[in-house]
Amino acid sequence: MSDNVVQAVQALKRGTVEVYTETDLAQRLVDAAKTGRPMRIKLGLDPTSPDIHLGHTVVLRKMRQFQDLGHKAVLIIGDYTARVGDPTGQNATRPMLSPEQIERNARTYFNQAGHILNTSPDKLEVRYNSEWLAKINLADLIKLASSMTVARMLERDTFELRYKAGDPIGIHEFLYPLMQGYDSVMIRSDVELGGTDQTFNNLVGRDLQRMHDQPPQIVITMPILVGLDGKEKMSKSKGNYVGVTDAPNDMFGKIMSISDEMMANYYTLLTDLPAEQIATLTDPSRSHPKEAKVTLGKTVVTQFYGPELAEMAAAEFDKVFAQGQLPDEIAEFSLPGEPISIKQLLTACKLVDSGGEAKRMVTQGGVSIDGQKVTDPNATTTPTDGMVVQVGRRRFARIRV
Amino acid sequence: MSDNVVQAVQALKRGTVEVYTETDLAQRLVDAAKTGRPMRIKLGLDPTSPDIHLGHTVVLRKMRQFQDLGHKAVLIIGDYTARVGDPTGQNATRPMLSPEQIERNARTYFNQAGHILNTSPDKLEVRYNSEWLAKINLADLIKLASSMTVARMLERDTFELRYKAGDPIGIHEFLYPLMQGYDSVMIRSDVELGGTDQTFNNLVGRDLQRMHDQPPQIVITMPILVGLDGKEKMSKSKGNYVGVTDAPNDMFGKIMSISDEMMANYYTLLTDLPAEQIATLTDPSRSHPKEAKVTLGKTVVTQFYGPELAEMAAAEFDKVFAQGQLPDEIAEFSLPGEPISIKQLLTACKLVDSGGEAKRMVTQGGVSIDGQKVTDPNATTTPTDGMVVQVGRRRFARIRV
Repeated sequence: MSDNVVQAVQALKRGTVEVYTETDLAQRLVDAAKTGRPMRIKLGLDPTSPDIHLGHTVVLRKMRQFQDLGHKAVLIIGDYTARVGDPTGQNATRPMLSPEQIERNARTYFNQAGHILNTSPDKLEVRYNSEWLAKINLADLIKLASSMTVARMLERDTFELRYKAGDPIGIHEFLYPLMQGYDSVMIRSDVELGGTDQTFNNLVGRDLQRMHDQPPQIVITMPILVGLDGKEKMSKSKGNYVGVTDAPNDMFGKIMSISDEMMANYYTLLTDLPAEQIATLTDPSRSHPKEAKVTLGKTVVTQFYGPELAEMAAAEFDKVFAQGQLPDEIAEFSLPGEPISIKQLLTACKLVDSGGEAKRMVTQGGVSIDGQKVTDPNATTTPTDGMVVQVGRRRFARIRV
Repeated sequence: MSDNVVQAVQALKRGTVEVYTETDLAQRLVDAAKTGRPMRIKLGLDPTSPDIHLGHTVVLRKMRQFQDLGHKAVLIIGDYTARVGDPTGQNATRPMLSPEQIERNARTYFNQAGHILNTSPDKLEVRYNSEWLAKINLADLIKLASSMTVARMLERDTFELRYKAGDPIGIHEFLYPLMQGYDSVMIRSDVELGGTDQTFNNLVGRDLQRMHDQPPQIVITMPILVGLDGKEKMSKSKGNYVGVTDAPNDMFGKIMSISDEMMANYYTLLTDLPAEQIATLTDPSRSHPKEAKVTLGKTVVTQFYGPELAEMAAAEFDKVFAQGQLPDEIAEFSLPGEPISIKQLLTACKLVDSGGEAKRMVTQGGVSIDGQKVTDPNATTTPTDGMVVQVGRRRFARIRV
């Protein structure tokens, strides 16, 4: 095996949880080099949640790495099952979508993924799985279903837990992994990428490809990125996420909020810095954690906005938080100069989403007016021109009377 | 509820194991009487094994009872799944059949079932389920599959036993009950008949009909007829069966071979005699068992061949077995007058299927030549004109040199 292939395998393994199998991957790279035919790297896209956060970019960055090595990304939009939805209506993650919603979501996803992926047509192919799933008949499906046993399906962790807990599992849920696997057959994928939560589904693709006399795809699983809270998986619904469309200042500020322990993980999964440099940056005896975190924030923001905006975000953060100054830009709101409650004030300046949030923020000591902490959400105040209201560490508003 | 309906429910319940539900059945009979619309009684037909024996007639006789009450038999030929077969090739009961084989088997079944059923077009409808199953798409199937849970499917006795034993169950096996249930939806069945081994599948039909806003079919299960050996289910492969195409003498003779304890069961499931008469016939203090068995044999043979041939079969049986005489008709075989082994002799006269069987029958003392028992299958004998060879109690051959 050539040194090139050995190096490529090493590079592609970075940050992965598992490669099924490394030998297959090396062999496939050798074949691709020999035939000059790029490998086809599959990634399934769920058209129900198009907004991408840094958690999603872990897999997308791996995809980009394959593209940079000369291979082709194949994005599969799971429109067929999205159009069907979950017939029982019990699975909130499978709502029924209209063709228009699917198209809109796919476009949103595509635009956001374009920050990471190379979107030139020779590097990226986008396919809708209704193209083949709409044509499947019952005889085809019986054949597909026969490739998998009930026992193996129930070994899948999510099914196993639900089965043991006595929670109902619809028979149709056993069909989804088969459909995903069939996608691999239809696009003849060489590699499928996914989070560890997709391991089972992606391995089904290997089985179905064998059944269809195709070489089985290599399955590469990537870790699930922990959210800003350091506890749960990054997700929009948990509010512990950094969206790829977040403004540079927000993105930088959110990254600065993670704990020191999380830095190594974020560096490995979200940047291309060499392992040795990451080791140095995350070793408190060699680097100051605060500075290491600033480097992390700037590196990530640079990927989306370039180095200049990243520097500006870092400077702004330093000014507001480290030096306690006000940010450069503060949204302004016009109010009459008449007494109103603190709750009303916060809502009027769009610093909170609801009266309940206003009350909570005040009670927790997170609200100040012109630098003075307020303690009673129902107390009244009279807005004056230039008054600055602050909620939490990063939300500001200036009043114009 | 009218007396008529009460009587009909009582009559239809005879010999059944379970009626799901009796109330539904009564209500449906009332509705049918009110609207003048006959009920549609479904029976699935397995096109892989067309030959019918008395075990099958238990269900067919119940169907005939419905026909005689004015309702319509709907036979479903499961051609779609027979054309697919079992893709794993592991299930010997699901071979893949050609359209010609399916058609031939369906015709054979239909001819044989015609001994029991009323085959006039207003009483009998024959449907092939490929008519609707070939049109089903993946979205339809997802919807169907969502109506059933994995846990409920695994409660089915055969699946439960296999799952606990660690034997593989293919996912496609979960689809078959759904397809059978969908058949009920498509033909809008009012009642489905089947053996107790079909209870689960037939109840699925109820669920799917509810899901399609149809009144759920009444499921009536019939007992599995015990074979002549009194132990196992009657089946061709076990050799413990009475085929509906068996000659009158064979049919009568086989029935005479059952044990006294089995008579009540056979009387109930295979004849229309009133319950009181059966009680008298099977009570040794009121009837002689031998005579009761002769009455059973004649009653069954009469259904297929009429009373005259039934009487002749009984007389023949009496002559050969009770009085030890030779039967009236014995097949003749021409052989050269040269020494051959007993094994060869039995095979040449078609009294056995193989040399192995010949050896076994001789060793068990079941073979005699001109009334003399033979003991060595390899001994030689010289055929003479008029020589009579007997195997077991009922197989005879006469030699012509």
